[in-house]
Amino acid sequence: MLQQVSVGQKSLDDYRPIVRGGEIEEIRSLAEPLKGAGVVHVNATAFGGGVVEIFHTLIPLMRDVGLDAEWQVIEGSDQFFRVTKAMHNALHGADIEITPEMQDIYLRYNEANANSFEGDYDFVVIHDPQPAALLHYHGRGGGKHWVWRCHIDTSTPNEAAWKFIRPYLKPYDVRIFHKPEYAGDLALSPMTVIPPSIDPLSPKNTPMPLEESRVIMARFGIDVDRPLLTQVSRFDPWKDPLGVIDAYRMVKEQVPEVQLALIASMASDDPEGWIFYDRIVRHAGEDFDIHVLHNFHGVGNVEVNAFQSGSDVIIQKSIREGFGLVVSEAMWKGKPVIGGNVGGIPLQIIDKQNGFLVDSVGECAGVALSLLQQPEAAQEMSVKAREYVRENFLSTRHLKDYLKLFLSLT
Amino acid sequence: MLQQVSVGQKSLDDYRPIVRGGEIEEIRSLAEPLKGAGVVHVNATAFGGGVVEIFHTLIPLMRDVGLDAEWQVIEGSDQFFRVTKAMHNALHGADIEITPEMQDIYLRYNEANANSFEGDYDFVVIHDPQPAALLHYHGRGGGKHWVWRCHIDTSTPNEAAWKFIRPYLKPYDVRIFHKPEYAGDLALSPMTVIPPSIDPLSPKNTPMPLEESRVIMARFGIDVDRPLLTQVSRFDPWKDPLGVIDAYRMVKEQVPEVQLALIASMASDDPEGWIFYDRIVRHAGEDFDIHVLHNFHGVGNVEVNAFQSGSDVIIQKSIREGFGLVVSEAMWKGKPVIGGNVGGIPLQIIDKQNGFLVDSVGECAGVALSLLQQPEAAQEMSVKAREYVRENFLSTRHLKDYLKLFLSLT
Repeated sequence: MLQQVSVGQKSLDDYRPIVRGGEIEEIRSLAEPLKGAGVVHVNATAFGGGVVEIFHTLIPLMRDVGLDAEWQVIEGSDQFFRVTKAMHNALHGADIEITPEMQDIYLRYNEANANSFEGDYDFVVIHDPQPAALLHYHGRGGGKHWVWRCHIDTSTPNEAAWKFIRPYLKPYDVRIFHKPEYAGDLALSPMTVIPPSIDPLSPKNTPMPLEESRVIMARFGIDVDRPLLTQVSRFDPWKDPLGVIDAYRMVKEQVPEVQLALIASMASDDPEGWIFYDRIVRHAGEDFDIHVLHNFHGVGNVEVNAFQSGSDVIIQKSIREGFGLVVSEAMWKGKPVIGGNVGGIPLQIIDKQNGFLVDSVGECAGVALSLLQQPEAAQEMSVKAREYVRENFLSTRHLKDYLKLFLSLT
Repeated sequence: MLQQVSVGQKSLDDYRPIVRGGEIEEIRSLAEPLKGAGVVHVNATAFGGGVVEIFHTLIPLMRDVGLDAEWQVIEGSDQFFRVTKAMHNALHGADIEITPEMQDIYLRYNEANANSFEGDYDFVVIHDPQPAALLHYHGRGGGKHWVWRCHIDTSTPNEAAWKFIRPYLKPYDVRIFHKPEYAGDLALSPMTVIPPSIDPLSPKNTPMPLEESRVIMARFGIDVDRPLLTQVSRFDPWKDPLGVIDAYRMVKEQVPEVQLALIASMASDDPEGWIFYDRIVRHAGEDFDIHVLHNFHGVGNVEVNAFQSGSDVIIQKSIREGFGLVVSEAMWKGKPVIGGNVGGIPLQIIDKQNGFLVDSVGECAGVALSLLQQPEAAQEMSVKAREYVRENFLSTRHLKDYLKLFLSLT
């Protein structure tokens, strides 16, 4: 049932011009004692989402420094994935009941995948709740060290759902969270914090000349001679795109020429996503200075890069957020980001130092307005934003954290 | 290069309960002298659109009456299909230049497909402009009779485009159009008129109990206890969905509880389609009695059937229309349709007899209002609408027309 996923090749040396001096050598020397160690990452999908994006960078880099790293994906039916989607939402805090029947489906597929898990690894890293019961059913044989990696905000989970999943998380040697607060009552068991990362060499993040980003934005109807606010984020109530439109409208009262772009990726098999998309477009109404764009309009990674690089202000006005790595993406392009003061966003934005944290539509509008009116101030923050990401949220730091964790377990 | 497409099996006898007495026998006796005749239909795509829908009914029925009928699809690059899309629009009358380079691409792919055309047929039926130059390059060998079948409105084509394609249409034995007016200056060469058809046994057209259609509509947020106007039509300026919204708003002044559904199928690879989709949703704005729905919301053939069967009034307010078979679909469900007085719509709707023809938003609103206020009148028309389709626009009539044409050529 478990399927191997292939990844490309990457060389750590390519990151040398980007990271601070000595970083590459430090990583290589950390990796030295782990040479040849077998590592398998196990998650639930090979396509889409931030975890998959990270795997495509991190696994090739682990190999480049000498680990024998691979990636396997569990298999499940549509029914199983409907259950795990519900569990995901419940662990995020949604009021959803995980019925005994759902629990049974969840466990049955974990058992079947556990039975097909083969090989002999030094480190087995299980990602997120979908395959979390693998260790329970498989037993420790085949893996010297078992790690559970959580990519979601489990700080205020639905209690029944947490109670159900918790026993399956306990037997792991260590649990990794984005933030200490996400560990909940598991904070007392062995726990470590590793934030996620962006790949500065991916097409989404490589430097783009302003001229190029303007050509791309113009293709989507943006008037590149007028100011532009942009939020790049799934069309989802937690990202508050309706609030972003309201903030834009407040800014527009003072700066009538301002434009807004809301950008996301849509899936053809997600009717709820389309319904919320329509909700946004309806709220935009016939104000054609608001641009609501997605992959079916032709927006891919390079276009996201163009909008992040070419906008005057980047907003990430989430009201709930796992981590919000898109904030680091924009900061890496030298943008002071206005972020909602939730989840992983305050880990990335130090308020008024390298960006701004806001708690309301009015605050968001106020900061956006002042950034448009005093672009020199924004310019100053730009360097700090980029340096903070360089220090904290690049793939190299992420790799280093994993190496340190593996060393600590041996 | 040419690819064979498979179709399912169908039996003409299954249509016996639907068509008038003697029809099945008449068709079988027409087919008698054609037993064993080889027929190939050639078009440019195996997926999507009205022509493909018709092939999946007509080709199995041709086989069932004894013809040796098959379907082949030409092959082309993205570039080729961009050119043929431009040609399609130009032949519809759009002001698009077909440059010498585009002509060259068009002809080159036609030549390559012509070279790969094999077999020995009694009747070769080439559909639409994409493969129209096949006969020119292939020569008559391999086909006793060559027929060109046009599915688009070529009554007022862009002159340069028409001048380019015309010489490739001339050598066919006969050209088939939906309406005589579509033949333009080719009307003088052998020409025949065969309108398209709907399959009364397809999931889109089989009778659906009102209760079932209401359950389905409610799933998409329709309040089934309040009146509903529906237009099922590609989101395209020629179908005037913005005008339909305006008409609905005029009706709503008198009947505040009225709702509107605009329904279409969207393609993930059609950015222009998505831009126009957004245009409609923005015009709808935050009036949530307007429902704009498409396949990614989960609307498929059965759901279209539900809306056509369960709505109070069906609108097809086109301002340009090839044929508009969706009008017959709704009439077959006993709905008096309000149609724009263009293209093939007046062939289906006899004004004030079995439906209504309108020339403006105001007229459309006026008729919709009176249909809502006098449902008895609508009820009376219902039978006439269904009977007109039974007589003129079912697959059985379409099959009969082809048989007659083939007989006339031998």
